[in-house]
Amino acid sequence: MRISELAEATGVPVHTLKYYLREGLLMPGEATSRTRAEYGPQHVERVRLVRALVQHGGVGIAGVRAILDALEAPPPSRHELLGVAHGALPGASREDGTADVDPWARRFVEQLDWGVEGCAPAIARLADAVVQARAAGLPLPDADLARYAQAMRRVAEVDLEVTERATSAAEAMRTVVIGTVLVDPVLLALRRLAQEAESAARSHG
Amino acid sequence: MRISELAEATGVPVHTLKYYLREGLLMPGEATSRTRAEYGPQHVERVRLVRALVQHGGVGIAGVRAILDALEAPPPSRHELLGVAHGALPGASREDGTADVDPWARRFVEQLDWGVEGCAPAIARLADAVVQARAAGLPLPDADLARYAQAMRRVAEVDLEVTERATSAAEAMRTVVIGTVLVDPVLLALRRLAQEAESAARSHG
Repeated sequence: MRISELAEATGVPVHTLKYYLREGLLMPGEATSRTRAEYGPQHVERVRLVRALVQHGGVGIAGVRAILDALEAPPPSRHELLGVAHGALPGASREDGTADVDPWARRFVEQLDWGVEGCAPAIARLADAVVQARAAGLPLPDADLARYAQAMRRVAEVDLEVTERATSAAEAMRTVVIGTVLVDPVLLALRRLAQEAESAARSHG
Repeated sequence: MRISELAEATGVPVHTLKYYLREGLLMPGEATSRTRAEYGPQHVERVRLVRALVQHGGVGIAGVRAILDALEAPPPSRHELLGVAHGALPGASREDGTADVDPWARRFVEQLDWGVEGCAPAIARLADAVVQARAAGLPLPDADLARYAQAMRRVAEVDLEVTERATSAAEAMRTVVIGTVLVDPVLLALRRLAQEAESAARSHG
């Protein structure tokens, strides 16, 4: 297909595709004349991934490059893909690193016995969120947090199955990024709905 | 206690307390002289609630008034409190109302059989979030969504238990608001952590 057809197939305007080409985020098509190139399904897949990263993931050009590099040979495992995606997504890690993570958070995560490495950026993120909620006057005892954690583990089971259904590493990466960023609001809406359901059940029960 | 002590007890500056008094968000203290008033524990509780609403809930003055009105006689049930809090929190409902909610979302929620009323603002919010994720290329089949919903119901069980532990309606309301707004980021951090744990378990398993 020509670049105009690639634009149509992906919903990304031609001038944006040319920008991706210049920045090396999209591999060149096969030249068919001095001014024309032919694009194929691998270009469609790449454009969809880049757009998902930039538009939905809020990932900068450097982050997109890191993800694309990680997708190249040697092909990373699905587990490594997730780490790369999490590292590139904004808000996944704190700017000041994780060296000063609250010892409480490390202990809490250790007690979950999930086999998560002590340096996972998500631990720092968890520590920040819990500290803020407790400072605002919510006791949030560890026992409640552990039950929240078990519920989110059920969520992650679905997340990982979705990723495993992907038929290529690029599609898996796109699924991780979109699935992480765009399913967050779905989960929060379901939480509100579940609160109403649970509240109704308890008041009538 | 005097207003300076009320400020110290709540961490809210005196000029903000005076603003709450002028706006009728804080009930007047008992006048002990022409320029002095005495405040008690009910003032501390009220200030904490108003601050939680404004600072963490992003609730405007009109929303705070609606919540305070709902707290006055006749005392509402805990279930009604939740509805009032959800209605006042920004992002809880769409500005354009819920009349045009996606029929898919209504059917999906009906199939959950949670007894949630068809007009719940959370349904519109859910519909928006799902439409956006699907438009970005995530299939998000109903079967996956139903499993996400079951997981969030586990979350809501904890949420409601936290609210039931509150010893007054004002404290319950504060718990609903802080617990809804400030536990959201905790849950999202736990999701990232759970994804890493689930991914590691699957790759080594």
